[in-house]
Amino acid sequence: MTTASICTIGDEILIGQIVDTNSSKISRQLNSIGIRVTRMVSIGDDHDEIISNLANELRCNNIVIVTGGLGPTKDDITKAALAELSCAKGWHEDAGQLEMVRHFLSSRGLEMLDINRAQAYVPDTCKVIVNRKGTAANMAFHFGEATVLGNGTQLPHKAVLYSLPGVPYECEAAMPDVLEDIKQNFETSDIFHRTIMTYGIAESALSKKIEDWEDSLPADMHLAYLPNLLTGVRLRLSIYGGVREEQEKRIEAELAKLRGLISEYIYSDQDDTLPQTIGRLLKAQGKKMSAAESCTGGTISKLMTATPGCSEYYWGSVTSYDNYVKIHVLGVPEEIIREHGAVSSECVAKMAEGVRRITGTDYAVATSGIAGPGGGTPDKPVGTVWMAVATEEGTLTRLFHYSNDRERNIERAAATALNLLRQVICGEISVK
Amino acid sequence: MTTASICTIGDEILIGQIVDTNSSKISRQLNSIGIRVTRMVSIGDDHDEIISNLANELRCNNIVIVTGGLGPTKDDITKAALAELSCAKGWHEDAGQLEMVRHFLSSRGLEMLDINRAQAYVPDTCKVIVNRKGTAANMAFHFGEATVLGNGTQLPHKAVLYSLPGVPYECEAAMPDVLEDIKQNFETSDIFHRTIMTYGIAESALSKKIEDWEDSLPADMHLAYLPNLLTGVRLRLSIYGGVREEQEKRIEAELAKLRGLISEYIYSDQDDTLPQTIGRLLKAQGKKMSAAESCTGGTISKLMTATPGCSEYYWGSVTSYDNYVKIHVLGVPEEIIREHGAVSSECVAKMAEGVRRITGTDYAVATSGIAGPGGGTPDKPVGTVWMAVATEEGTLTRLFHYSNDRERNIERAAATALNLLRQVICGEISVK
Repeated sequence: MTTASICTIGDEILIGQIVDTNSSKISRQLNSIGIRVTRMVSIGDDHDEIISNLANELRCNNIVIVTGGLGPTKDDITKAALAELSCAKGWHEDAGQLEMVRHFLSSRGLEMLDINRAQAYVPDTCKVIVNRKGTAANMAFHFGEATVLGNGTQLPHKAVLYSLPGVPYECEAAMPDVLEDIKQNFETSDIFHRTIMTYGIAESALSKKIEDWEDSLPADMHLAYLPNLLTGVRLRLSIYGGVREEQEKRIEAELAKLRGLISEYIYSDQDDTLPQTIGRLLKAQGKKMSAAESCTGGTISKLMTATPGCSEYYWGSVTSYDNYVKIHVLGVPEEIIREHGAVSSECVAKMAEGVRRITGTDYAVATSGIAGPGGGTPDKPVGTVWMAVATEEGTLTRLFHYSNDRERNIERAAATALNLLRQVICGEISVK
Repeated sequence: MTTASICTIGDEILIGQIVDTNSSKISRQLNSIGIRVTRMVSIGDDHDEIISNLANELRCNNIVIVTGGLGPTKDDITKAALAELSCAKGWHEDAGQLEMVRHFLSSRGLEMLDINRAQAYVPDTCKVIVNRKGTAANMAFHFGEATVLGNGTQLPHKAVLYSLPGVPYECEAAMPDVLEDIKQNFETSDIFHRTIMTYGIAESALSKKIEDWEDSLPADMHLAYLPNLLTGVRLRLSIYGGVREEQEKRIEAELAKLRGLISEYIYSDQDDTLPQTIGRLLKAQGKKMSAAESCTGGTISKLMTATPGCSEYYWGSVTSYDNYVKIHVLGVPEEIIREHGAVSSECVAKMAEGVRRITGTDYAVATSGIAGPGGGTPDKPVGTVWMAVATEEGTLTRLFHYSNDRERNIERAAATALNLLRQVICGEISVK
């Protein structure tokens, strides 16, 4: 089986200043073409460390994907190390990448500096995969079987090293070309999979519910649990290889059984998010929505507007962080806040009704809670969040209790509110 | 210098199912006592892989911190591998950890099963560091100089391997004891660093501006560039060891020179973000702010409310995604949108003034643009974004052009708008 290693280069990762999110994305994509990742390694911006580590990964794996260490500044020395590792005789300027560098700088009204130009300058041992999202060239180094590397390491097999920028969206943008190149050089197998999106049930509880079904799965089918704060637990059922039609029929048969077990938690059997699902439902109904956010502070709005074309169904929101805004913009009666507090069923209902009225939408969702870490009271501890959904038929409210982790509380509250809205839109819950 | 390696064990990381966040936290803590992390490695739940990789890390480093692979389920085989690696003669039940296991189960009303009890069962070659947050024992394996490991590897130095659970909060809870043990066994020193936050200048242009200064830095000082879409380029200057007062004086002396070179781009010499900087400025002035967002769709509000205590100066926002909301909530005159369009200096100015009025705040920031990928016109292509800042003295607008990457456009526009607001608040730019 073709194996791969993913390496990140950069002191900023070793000193813990940033978390490496590229490797897991790359790993999932390699898995999707049947390539197993055997190791992930992070090393610093050190010439010798880069050479010895990459040589070792190439010795143990057919594919080595390197991210990071390609910026224009001094602390990035990866390219020189790769030239030495691949025994480059010389360097040249890649016309395609230089064009990109020129394009990026001019589009920002910047003049081209030597250090910008240098980004298109590559060792003659590499094949450039043009980076369309940034200035640093993506490089592919192909090594035949028994190649002797710059540090004397001899490879027991043919191998390819891909060097990609560490900037996540640049790295992500390069992967399709990388996967194409891998398919041309190594044996890969298609993977067939279907995804079921669930919300409102923890991974452990979910796995208990579907235990028997999971145990009865054919040996060649693999189930993956992909929990996410904003999308819930995504279940992915996959098979490697075989004939598409047959394999997809087999997967569908298993999913039919699965749906029967957890139907109340499934919100989509396409790989889409809660905001995308809500968007589909609203477009189908020709309806519009809006939001009033207190503790979620704009997160619901940000999530809804992340989808291109959302202006068709998403009309806007009010973040009423201060009570002045709840009262004067959303029209929440002052006495409701005085009597019940801003974090109450009464207030959140008025917030939803208020934003629905002033934005002229069919549906409105609202949140009001204590995100923390401070600010709780005995009867309303940190993590207390009220939510509401308002429609022309009426308004529904719900109470949730979370932890005292501010960031998690905000994201969980936003996702839970969106799921509540979704349930109302598709009629799973009635507001009456 | 004492060096360390951080290893994570678990297939879930290699297949990209979860992102490893423990390593960066551990790294920061090791750095804080002057220990340099030379490598981070992730490997799967494979007996031989664990032994060969850990032996290699112990050969290259004095300290190896292993996280993961300690759960009760059968795919966790780390403990057996560690017993073999450390040439354990036998196993025993650790009384302290068993007490914890008992405590956790009883507090959940569960009876103790053999697999629970087994969590306190450890090789006799380790010193247990009781895990107070979970059932799996934290283990410390101390190896003297020239120790021969289970796979025949001989160590060139004394070393310690710490095995901690992968569950982030359990791992985090173990670190104080781990750091204590490290201090007792190795020479440690402090690291001193200062961070300068810049915005509005690209990494390459920045490095060109400070090139001579950077080249003239003392050999023991290290400068790192940490670019980020939302915070700009963070410059971090650090030194290991020495006397705090002296070293901090030396760093400060270098920073004084640096400030002179790029003062117009520096927004903070503390390690804080644009929203945190704006918060400090507003609190100092006793002023409040609000936002009106079109293309940024709630991102400015989400960024401002990410900081605990923001309710002191952040009163709220209106996401006026649809023109109906611009007109009926923010009070933008219909004819302005008819004559100039929603993406115009005139409209964004009225949005800022409108939200400032209805929220009763001192400052207001607004954005209106075309985030893309679709929707542009020849005179207003995708990536065109108008921004405004309104105060009691007047309103200022600015035009920016970005790419056609929706997510990036939204984030860059939000950050740029916040920087514009910051410049107005601290008087760098006048609205008149």
